[in-house]
Amino acid sequence: MITVQEHLSRIVESVQRLPPIGLDLLDAQGCVLAQDVTSEVSLPGFRNSAMDGYAVHAADLAAAGDAAPVVLPVAGDIAAGNTQTLSLAPGQSMRIMTGAPMPDGADAVVPVERTDGGLTRVVVSASVSVGQHVREAGEDVQAGDVVMSQGTRLGPRQIALLAAVGTGEVRVTPRPRVVVISTGDELIEPGTRPGFGQVVDSNGLMLTAAVRALGCIPFRVGCVRDDAQTFLSTIESQLRRADAVITTGGVSMGAYDTVKEVLSAVGTMRFDKVAMQPGMPQGFGVIGEGEIPVFTLPGNPVSALVSFEVFVAPALRLMAGRPQRETSMVSAVAAHDWAVPAGKVQYARVVLSHESSHEGLRHTAAIAGFQGSHALGSLAVANALAVIPAEVTSVRAGDQVSCHPLGPILEAS
Amino acid sequence: MITVQEHLSRIVESVQRLPPIGLDLLDAQGCVLAQDVTSEVSLPGFRNSAMDGYAVHAADLAAAGDAAPVVLPVAGDIAAGNTQTLSLAPGQSMRIMTGAPMPDGADAVVPVERTDGGLTRVVVSASVSVGQHVREAGEDVQAGDVVMSQGTRLGPRQIALLAAVGTGEVRVTPRPRVVVISTGDELIEPGTRPGFGQVVDSNGLMLTAAVRALGCIPFRVGCVRDDAQTFLSTIESQLRRADAVITTGGVSMGAYDTVKEVLSAVGTMRFDKVAMQPGMPQGFGVIGEGEIPVFTLPGNPVSALVSFEVFVAPALRLMAGRPQRETSMVSAVAAHDWAVPAGKVQYARVVLSHESSHEGLRHTAAIAGFQGSHALGSLAVANALAVIPAEVTSVRAGDQVSCHPLGPILEAS
Repeated sequence: MITVQEHLSRIVESVQRLPPIGLDLLDAQGCVLAQDVTSEVSLPGFRNSAMDGYAVHAADLAAAGDAAPVVLPVAGDIAAGNTQTLSLAPGQSMRIMTGAPMPDGADAVVPVERTDGGLTRVVVSASVSVGQHVREAGEDVQAGDVVMSQGTRLGPRQIALLAAVGTGEVRVTPRPRVVVISTGDELIEPGTRPGFGQVVDSNGLMLTAAVRALGCIPFRVGCVRDDAQTFLSTIESQLRRADAVITTGGVSMGAYDTVKEVLSAVGTMRFDKVAMQPGMPQGFGVIGEGEIPVFTLPGNPVSALVSFEVFVAPALRLMAGRPQRETSMVSAVAAHDWAVPAGKVQYARVVLSHESSHEGLRHTAAIAGFQGSHALGSLAVANALAVIPAEVTSVRAGDQVSCHPLGPILEAS
Repeated sequence: MITVQEHLSRIVESVQRLPPIGLDLLDAQGCVLAQDVTSEVSLPGFRNSAMDGYAVHAADLAAAGDAAPVVLPVAGDIAAGNTQTLSLAPGQSMRIMTGAPMPDGADAVVPVERTDGGLTRVVVSASVSVGQHVREAGEDVQAGDVVMSQGTRLGPRQIALLAAVGTGEVRVTPRPRVVVISTGDELIEPGTRPGFGQVVDSNGLMLTAAVRALGCIPFRVGCVRDDAQTFLSTIESQLRRADAVITTGGVSMGAYDTVKEVLSAVGTMRFDKVAMQPGMPQGFGVIGEGEIPVFTLPGNPVSALVSFEVFVAPALRLMAGRPQRETSMVSAVAAHDWAVPAGKVQYARVVLSHESSHEGLRHTAAIAGFQGSHALGSLAVANALAVIPAEVTSVRAGDQVSCHPLGPILEAS
């Protein structure tokens, strides 16, 4: 029996960040930059107006006010998208739109709301200071600036900045492609009503969805029979398109545990009992020329999901260039007593709820129904796993427990 | 000038949850159930073994122990996937695998670890209680149970449960399809280096990515010139595939504000000044036979992003059958003084950081650099918007400020 930490350490030491690729900006959403990005342009790229109004020489309006309007001739009209360099003589104005280039010589903009909106001559009832409502070239970004660092994960706002500085393609760590294989003679395809002795392959769908929810690219291979040759040829053919492989089933103490039987002598594969509940039988190794990580998870659905959260997700995040953990544990108060196994880390499905008070946010963890490792009902209503260390022998109402959130834990407010 | 709440209320009262459609389970990931799902099957579907071991009559092993092993003949072998009904005579055992159907008559399973693993006769060195290591049919879900309620959002674990009860297709509220249109003569396509007077259409990419990050389906229409006819025909043709339309630009006080000019008389469109900074000029209405919501956002990138977060995202969530808000505001302490506008809600780009102490988690909000409404640099490094109410006239270091998180706010731990 090895500890959870021993198994996890072996995994994270075996996986590598994937080699970078070039992607179009929108295709890179969710990916991590594999390079610093230096801007070749300044932002704004040219001096422009922050308001719809009139470009002026501020000095011409020094005496302007509600009681003493100043009249200026309007020498022209500058729309956004104007690509000509214009020039403004002292004593004159030009109508200008938000984002349009400032004419040379002008040093301020009077908002249209402070004028009569005239087209040939404009009545201005406010003074302006030099630089007012003018966006200087480079005040946001200077050409030569590193605008984004290697390791930044690209969301909508990061993509916008990269686009704005002229980037079309970026070098990023790609999303890992993950093959999901379910094994077992008892399995039937989803959408089929199970007969006696049969079970729907819910694991395959669950892990496919979990891989996708993590921002990776899943390939679901249907159910594979408990037959050594079939399983081996499936794994071999799938390795070509996989950055990682997840299997479920066939890793326990049974007589027909094909996965364990076939993979035991392959690559660095090792099958261990891990001191956890659920999820004890685990296998992991890297195989093939590409040293593809293979996670062989137990077949009970709850065991498979817990194993994914505890072992697979950290590895996939590292492969994607992301931190091994991205969400914090949540400290909660146990709502009631519950039984814990001796000498194993317990991952109990709980429903976390919270209340706000003047002392801050307080979370409560209550067991989410029936806890069998085959019980999908309670898995679907849980929103966290309470992680009870191996040395803890009981949980009593009021105890502090540390919880691993499954998806959002806070209700809409 | 109207308030943020007035504009938001008009929007949320105008949008409808989309009509439900049937989708395959994996295609429904992220969608909300439009029906209660009642199981037609029980889970487990049949009485089965929770362990690899031997199915027995518990009474036969009443006296078994380390010092007093009991020997039983092994009458057969039951693998998972066995679909035959078998029967176990008293005084006998059958080798059985995890998940395999229990033979009639057997009332417990001895784990293989407590035996010698024999194939024709087995030496058992432990007694078992009736029901031990046996999963009863229906102990997780009973046929006829409502296993999931209308309104549940489907993630990996929910999909697993629905698959397990035999569901192939589910009726869900679909993801809204959202058309994103940028307007402005100054705009050029991303991947192009801007010349004098030109600006890359970063808004189009940003909002496309933001729509996708929200779980909706974006269609980016490239940049549309400031030409009434072109804009009108673009909107008309896009309405066919849209559940909602977002435009940026052309809604302010300028002479070439095409969006405002073209849409002012269309459907229920209304253009307002909203008391907020950034984001003041806003337009919204429903247009066409389909009463498609159209959000016309200002063209400054920061204004566009803030408008998306404050007005568009709540509407899209409601259309998707989700709560209007899904993340809580975070209370933080201002790291320093900053200026606020009079009479308007300020959405200040801030970097939230946190520290844990024995008093709990404490967040600090610091201004994320240059705050111009065109400044993408600070938008890309911010992780929240500090929302300062219109009646607040100053923020001082140490003040409590309420923050709207942009993406995850907690660092990996």
